[in-house]
Amino acid sequence: MELDNEQQVQQAVHALTDLLENGQDDDFMTEFMTLHDFEKGQVYASFSKNIREVAWRVMDDETLATVFDNLEGDAEEVVDLLQEVPPQKGANILVEMFADNEADLFQAMPARLASTYLALMPDREAQEIRNLIKYEDQTAGALMATEYLAVAAGSVVKDVLAQVKKQAEEAESIIYVYVVDEKHRLVGIVSLRDLLTHPDEMTIESITNTRVISVKAGDDQKEVAQVVADYNFFAIPVTDDDQHLLGIITVDDIVDVIDEEAVEEYSGLAAVDVSDTDDSPWHSALKRMPWFLALLVLGLISVALVASFEHTIRQAPILAAFIMVIAGIAGNAGTQSLALAVRHFGSSTDKSFWKNLISELLSSFVLAILAGVVLFGFVFLWQDNEGLALAVALSATVAILLSALLAYLVPAALRKVNLDPALVNGPLVQTVVDWAAILVYFGIATSMLNEFIGK
Amino acid sequence: MELDNEQQVQQAVHALTDLLENGQDDDFMTEFMTLHDFEKGQVYASFSKNIREVAWRVMDDETLATVFDNLEGDAEEVVDLLQEVPPQKGANILVEMFADNEADLFQAMPARLASTYLALMPDREAQEIRNLIKYEDQTAGALMATEYLAVAAGSVVKDVLAQVKKQAEEAESIIYVYVVDEKHRLVGIVSLRDLLTHPDEMTIESITNTRVISVKAGDDQKEVAQVVADYNFFAIPVTDDDQHLLGIITVDDIVDVIDEEAVEEYSGLAAVDVSDTDDSPWHSALKRMPWFLALLVLGLISVALVASFEHTIRQAPILAAFIMVIAGIAGNAGTQSLALAVRHFGSSTDKSFWKNLISELLSSFVLAILAGVVLFGFVFLWQDNEGLALAVALSATVAILLSALLAYLVPAALRKVNLDPALVNGPLVQTVVDWAAILVYFGIATSMLNEFIGK
Repeated sequence: MELDNEQQVQQAVHALTDLLENGQDDDFMTEFMTLHDFEKGQVYASFSKNIREVAWRVMDDETLATVFDNLEGDAEEVVDLLQEVPPQKGANILVEMFADNEADLFQAMPARLASTYLALMPDREAQEIRNLIKYEDQTAGALMATEYLAVAAGSVVKDVLAQVKKQAEEAESIIYVYVVDEKHRLVGIVSLRDLLTHPDEMTIESITNTRVISVKAGDDQKEVAQVVADYNFFAIPVTDDDQHLLGIITVDDIVDVIDEEAVEEYSGLAAVDVSDTDDSPWHSALKRMPWFLALLVLGLISVALVASFEHTIRQAPILAAFIMVIAGIAGNAGTQSLALAVRHFGSSTDKSFWKNLISELLSSFVLAILAGVVLFGFVFLWQDNEGLALAVALSATVAILLSALLAYLVPAALRKVNLDPALVNGPLVQTVVDWAAILVYFGIATSMLNEFIGK
Repeated sequence: MELDNEQQVQQAVHALTDLLENGQDDDFMTEFMTLHDFEKGQVYASFSKNIREVAWRVMDDETLATVFDNLEGDAEEVVDLLQEVPPQKGANILVEMFADNEADLFQAMPARLASTYLALMPDREAQEIRNLIKYEDQTAGALMATEYLAVAAGSVVKDVLAQVKKQAEEAESIIYVYVVDEKHRLVGIVSLRDLLTHPDEMTIESITNTRVISVKAGDDQKEVAQVVADYNFFAIPVTDDDQHLLGIITVDDIVDVIDEEAVEEYSGLAAVDVSDTDDSPWHSALKRMPWFLALLVLGLISVALVASFEHTIRQAPILAAFIMVIAGIAGNAGTQSLALAVRHFGSSTDKSFWKNLISELLSSFVLAILAGVVLFGFVFLWQDNEGLALAVALSATVAILLSALLAYLVPAALRKVNLDPALVNGPLVQTVVDWAAILVYFGIATSMLNEFIGK
């Protein structure tokens, strides 16, 4: 499927390039307009720079706005493309774009460039954008578009439908119409479906749903996504603290949020950014290097820890054989606890924190006891040495409980001080668990040395 | 936010329960209908069994269908609720439900129960469901609803709008109208937006987009989700191999797919199912136990491997200090490679497999050399023993490369034999890398023993 799309885009790029090179500008536009909006962005970005120089001259501002609304990739790259057109034309394109995409570009551009564009815009548009870009990244405010359909309470169906028809071209979504009071406070929602299926002269009140589900501009995008996913909405309104309607977030942006959050959590767990797929090996290695080096250096601490027990190992070399399984099984339990903690914190409140922690510890306790029993049995049967078996089993049990506690508490502590818990990743947990396991195991083994040595 | 919703639902459950207990059935229905569809499901499931016994008698089939369309949780649990109503009523509810949700329930129920319901349905409905449930899980066919708006080519705007109004109640989505030929083959799509903004007498052809993006019923849900996410569609049509229109998939189902796939991949990496959040500690431990035990037993193999080098360790106990950092850093590299492999395979074709593998190996090679240099420096400075330093550095380099190869090849091999690559998880990679690291390290150390011993 992916391939089909790529092939189609390449074909379109060739055909459209030919038309422009032959001076068939009108045919070019006719052909270009048959593309899906998403493809318009893909095709424009795939044109050679020379062709783009001609293409933007042929296209009207509105079409270019559709192109820029649909360009994928980093906002920085989109800004680069925007700078290929003269500043005034760039400003016009920005004005025609959907406000959420426009705000994204403003947030990605250098302050000086932003000032230039703002100065070239109508005052009202410039003010609107200044309002939008003040919202923090990853909040509802940063996601919302300001192109929505609002009608006053008291209208009748026929008039609202007329307004829908008039504004249909500009609104980001016409599936819902928002009913506001005289102070632009959101009081209800009417679906286009209801508008179409009720008599022309009916008042809008009688088909308005006043149990409005909305989000606040400061709400985290993750929570917003959860609400939209739960309720199966196509769009959700965004208000300020006094219920004034500020904008709407459409489900296509929610899809992107869910994808983005998933990639972030997954990357966090593995300590590698999986979002870039076409880096060169060298770039990919450079990106992985910071975590890799950090984990290597932290790993060296475990070397020093084991070395400090060299005396014990000298007396009982067989001890060296068990440290990896103890650290390994504790690390696995820790990774599992971490995964559960990261996912659960995402959707739970402080209130349930201790409940979750205790539940997780109880669950780990069951696994820890199980591991202890299995290891005791294995070591006892293999080495016929109950002292050694006890030391190994006890160490594993303690280490597993410690690692679960650690994997649960550290992300929570980070969140408390407003750091991203995704900083704690699977390999990091494994490394720290290694230290704990070494200390617990060799500590217990050294103190029990007389119990099993020489047996 | 989550909490708000919970509180609201609890309040609604109390108020509605009171109304039913006081015999105010009409008020109950009026109140119930003010709820959002999603809440209708939540509230119904939260009623006590006794109240549900009354509630389903008060509600009409259509309202109950909305309830069952919006019940969350396992399909098995929904089937249990459905069995609380008499078979004929249950069959009526199923008929009124959206076909995709209905098919989910049929797939979750025992064959005998399914036959009962099918026998109680009108023949046409029963046949439709038999057609739907033959699609494999996680394909476009299994996701699609059959309630869509199709019009014949040749209609005019006015007539199509009239049809939209007539069918608006039943269709899953009225945002797009699908244009089909006389053999029900999909030839184009018209958006409701275009219908509303064009003159009544215009022919539908002139506003039909014939560059239709559709998916095949057998396509994987992940690929479908990618297309919908890329194109920002609200719905996508599903066809058979001859372009016959079979159904549509709406974006709310795509949101669920993206969420489901993300949870699956994340759970896979951590070797723990993170999708259930309210299990008891005991259940949670039971669920984690299979992987935990498997990894423990596999970990015992590493014990035996280290023990087989007991002679070497006896001669140079310091060797024991480095095995954890070598296995650890190789495991980290392996986890990173695995994460990249799982994500990339998801969206790449066989063609790019070798390209990806070579790119991944080159990238790991850079990291492996780096680890070798750091470890050589550290061991040399600390122990002043270049033989030992060389053995440690060389082992780390080889182990990292091996683990990257392994983390990339094993998921690919699983996919080749049609097993889910999510079977390979982070902890498993770490365990297998442990073996490789032990063999490589103690193998190299044993053969170089004379180079560094006694220094």
